[in-house]
Amino acid sequence: MTRERIYLYDTTLRDGQQTPGVDFSVEDKIAIAGMLDAFGFDYVEGGYPGANPTDTAFFEKKRTRKSSFVAFGMTKRAGVSASNDPGLVALIQSSADATCLVAKSWDYHVRVALGCTNDENLESISSSVAASVAAGKETMVDCEHFFDGYKANPAYALSCARAAYDAGARWVILCDTNGGTQPTEVREIVSAVIASGIPGANLGIHAHDDTGQAVANSLAAVDAGVRQIQGTLNGIGERCGNANLITILPTLMLKPAFADRFETGISHDKLTGISRLSHSFDEFLNRVPNLQSPYVGASAFATKAGIHASALLKEPETYEHVPPETVGNTRRVMVSDQGGKSNFIAELTRRGIPVAKDDPRLDTLIALVKEREAQGYAYEGADASFDLLARRTLGAVPTFFHVESFRCMVERRYDANGNVKTVSEAIVKILIDGEEKMSVAEGDGPVNALDIALRKDLGKFQNEIDDLTLTDFKVRILNGGTEAITRVLIESHDGTGERWRTVGVSENLIDASFQALMDSIVYKLVKNRAQQAVAAQ
Amino acid sequence: MTRERIYLYDTTLRDGQQTPGVDFSVEDKIAIAGMLDAFGFDYVEGGYPGANPTDTAFFEKKRTRKSSFVAFGMTKRAGVSASNDPGLVALIQSSADATCLVAKSWDYHVRVALGCTNDENLESISSSVAASVAAGKETMVDCEHFFDGYKANPAYALSCARAAYDAGARWVILCDTNGGTQPTEVREIVSAVIASGIPGANLGIHAHDDTGQAVANSLAAVDAGVRQIQGTLNGIGERCGNANLITILPTLMLKPAFADRFETGISHDKLTGISRLSHSFDEFLNRVPNLQSPYVGASAFATKAGIHASALLKEPETYEHVPPETVGNTRRVMVSDQGGKSNFIAELTRRGIPVAKDDPRLDTLIALVKEREAQGYAYEGADASFDLLARRTLGAVPTFFHVESFRCMVERRYDANGNVKTVSEAIVKILIDGEEKMSVAEGDGPVNALDIALRKDLGKFQNEIDDLTLTDFKVRILNGGTEAITRVLIESHDGTGERWRTVGVSENLIDASFQALMDSIVYKLVKNRAQQAVAAQ
Repeated sequence: MTRERIYLYDTTLRDGQQTPGVDFSVEDKIAIAGMLDAFGFDYVEGGYPGANPTDTAFFEKKRTRKSSFVAFGMTKRAGVSASNDPGLVALIQSSADATCLVAKSWDYHVRVALGCTNDENLESISSSVAASVAAGKETMVDCEHFFDGYKANPAYALSCARAAYDAGARWVILCDTNGGTQPTEVREIVSAVIASGIPGANLGIHAHDDTGQAVANSLAAVDAGVRQIQGTLNGIGERCGNANLITILPTLMLKPAFADRFETGISHDKLTGISRLSHSFDEFLNRVPNLQSPYVGASAFATKAGIHASALLKEPETYEHVPPETVGNTRRVMVSDQGGKSNFIAELTRRGIPVAKDDPRLDTLIALVKEREAQGYAYEGADASFDLLARRTLGAVPTFFHVESFRCMVERRYDANGNVKTVSEAIVKILIDGEEKMSVAEGDGPVNALDIALRKDLGKFQNEIDDLTLTDFKVRILNGGTEAITRVLIESHDGTGERWRTVGVSENLIDASFQALMDSIVYKLVKNRAQQAVAAQ
Repeated sequence: MTRERIYLYDTTLRDGQQTPGVDFSVEDKIAIAGMLDAFGFDYVEGGYPGANPTDTAFFEKKRTRKSSFVAFGMTKRAGVSASNDPGLVALIQSSADATCLVAKSWDYHVRVALGCTNDENLESISSSVAASVAAGKETMVDCEHFFDGYKANPAYALSCARAAYDAGARWVILCDTNGGTQPTEVREIVSAVIASGIPGANLGIHAHDDTGQAVANSLAAVDAGVRQIQGTLNGIGERCGNANLITILPTLMLKPAFADRFETGISHDKLTGISRLSHSFDEFLNRVPNLQSPYVGASAFATKAGIHASALLKEPETYEHVPPETVGNTRRVMVSDQGGKSNFIAELTRRGIPVAKDDPRLDTLIALVKEREAQGYAYEGADASFDLLARRTLGAVPTFFHVESFRCMVERRYDANGNVKTVSEAIVKILIDGEEKMSVAEGDGPVNALDIALRKDLGKFQNEIDDLTLTDFKVRILNGGTEAITRVLIESHDGTGERWRTVGVSENLIDASFQALMDSIVYKLVKNRAQQAVAAQ
């Protein structure tokens, strides 16, 4: 059975840029376009040349090898010819392979936003598409507000889509611009458009996540006949975001409801890179990846000890909707005080820490984890601290250095001019190779000062930790009240892009932070040695 | 036209607890159950009494007023009678109003996980339901793996559902346990279940987000006939999470596709509290609220300067799929922020702080809140700090006392016997009525020491704050990286049983804590005066 082709259109660089807090430079856009191109999306929309200096510079040359490079812009204004509309001319003369012209398809917006007649808008669509096609560009039209427009005036919405198609547009994209349309409505309206005479093979869907259904709306549209999906990496975009291509693609390729009928331009081999693509993009945005993202999140195939864990280990396929390796993710059975021995072995094996099932040190480790979790440690959120605890219990972790003492001080007072001034200072005394070193540092707060002082002079290890950065610091008070215990979770990362989490627990916030900071540094040193050992093989 | 009732079932405290990194204490569960109950969910599933000490303690008494309080557990084991199965007995004897019994409905799992025959499993379902019903509990059955089970063996899956219904279960819930089922499949299978003779009015849906469609699957099931939806706050849950009730509820209540046909137990007035509910729950988990969450995210009604912004300001309803105030959110246009003045007036009125709509100090307050929230303050989670800021801006809060300076010190060293010893000490200098007082205290950590020192001698106010207790202390790092800003949220309570929350923001953790501690003390003094004023009337 031949399967129909679904085309994937990425608008991360254009609609994704509408995300509050996201602003791409030309260099950012070049790098992201490279990632999208290498992964194999059919279309990469780069922005709106002529609208701003960044996009104009980005479109100075073609930025993709295989993907079609798309320039976004508006249909010409009413009352001027296509060749006299500078915006449209800039678009057509750009380095793009294809153009995507946004056109109003809700009569209300034609009147209010464009201030022209319905017929003038249709003429703008037709002649803009014709001009783009004549210039040799593959041409698409984003029918803005199509679904809301269809509900208000179906005949006019259809005539806009029709004008684009009749003028030679390769794709007519139905946009749920406000994001509120429900999947049943998408299905009905797409069916009506196809019934009106535009083939599904020329239709696309552009959905937003305002009711949490951008993925479902996109897939409902495919089910109803459209063959192009517009979306973004990790679902970034205006308001609640666009349809998440990272979620849609595995569903299209792995779920029989779609995979039996459709194919994409991306191979199953490439699909195993999708977790990495998603995480790299988050790194790029300097965002912490969402643990719970479908398919690619660190928790997407994680199971806590409980009624499912032991069965999962026996027969993973009956508890996992797809095999994690198909999307480049891994199964995780969370280590926690409820965990059984098999969970521990599975986790240790995954971490490259060999242990025999009957090794008595394994029982010691399990007992230790239980004891420490009862004290407030949370190893499921602190992989690196678990790693160190396991290595220390099962083998040996060198004592790289010893902290003999530290002191933190925070002082707040008014200076001579009556301004409040707060100073934080930390002093540490460290023993390395029999040599005592004292370091002092100021910081933005006591933990920051302590971190700086700790890492100021680690002697022969200093150059090894240069690329270590703290990326997150979380504090939680357990129990509450006067017997409160403080748990500190620290996330670190280094130049290799690896992130690790460490934990500290104490009555004392500074002491808990100190433990987590120490674990982070020691983990980094252990990791460096493991990597050197692999490289030496 | 009469609308059919949809019942909302919250499983935050049970399935939500399966979220990696989430672990609720009994106190946490009591607080969250209170939030759910106050908001108006029909059912609050509290956990699994008998499975662990936390849940057993939580079920010692009924924890809801209006919501039905549900205990989760398993159907009895094969080969013992219902009255001889200790797990089931614990469930039936608990303080819960209702029970939710999980039952296998995929024959494969009956064989592999339960190790009994298909008929024995049916008998377990029937007699467990009968025993629960006989004990006077409203009884529900979660048919685990129902959709995958139906695909593998439709007759057996149906007979499991049927056994539950025939034995008197009020609700039979169809669970997509592995989370991979597509909306079209949900629709077909729900229709088949109804066609088999179980009325939709007795069916529920339990969806997971493994393909990003838990919301769509829940709504597709409603469309196909089910009348109960199980989900969690903010979609927490195992792996990718459960169906997000915070997203589903507004769609049910505001989107004509559902609102024209259905009603829920929650009023439109309550619905305006849903943004607050979502954010409070995130604060509780010490998580950063997702800016892009449908309906409730800070970006959900935000528009960046661009092609939509000016039109949005003219005619917001044509660019917003629902009015933001219906869900207690606000419109944000990045260029010229249009804050909801009426929201402020409503909140101030609620707090007994009178203000006229045209009072220029109201504009000052709105600007101040925006400015401080941009710096990292979060007044939604810090009612008492907002209260003080408003009173200070609109009227006057007395300067009860002035802290001239403080100093905190934490020292860790080894004592003569080689044991680690950590000492925390704080010194404060306070001016009250022209008199300078110095206090010094040791504590479990620097903030605890500072808190004790601050409250050690407040002169004539000392007896007023004797019943003040800190109950929670949360720290979050905003921004991350080197320019990190620390936000501290403190919860306090006093002898009247009132709880209030205060916030501090600074680069420096101790400084941020100091601000929150000060706000807590001053709020308590202001509150005492307001109560005296009421008592004097």
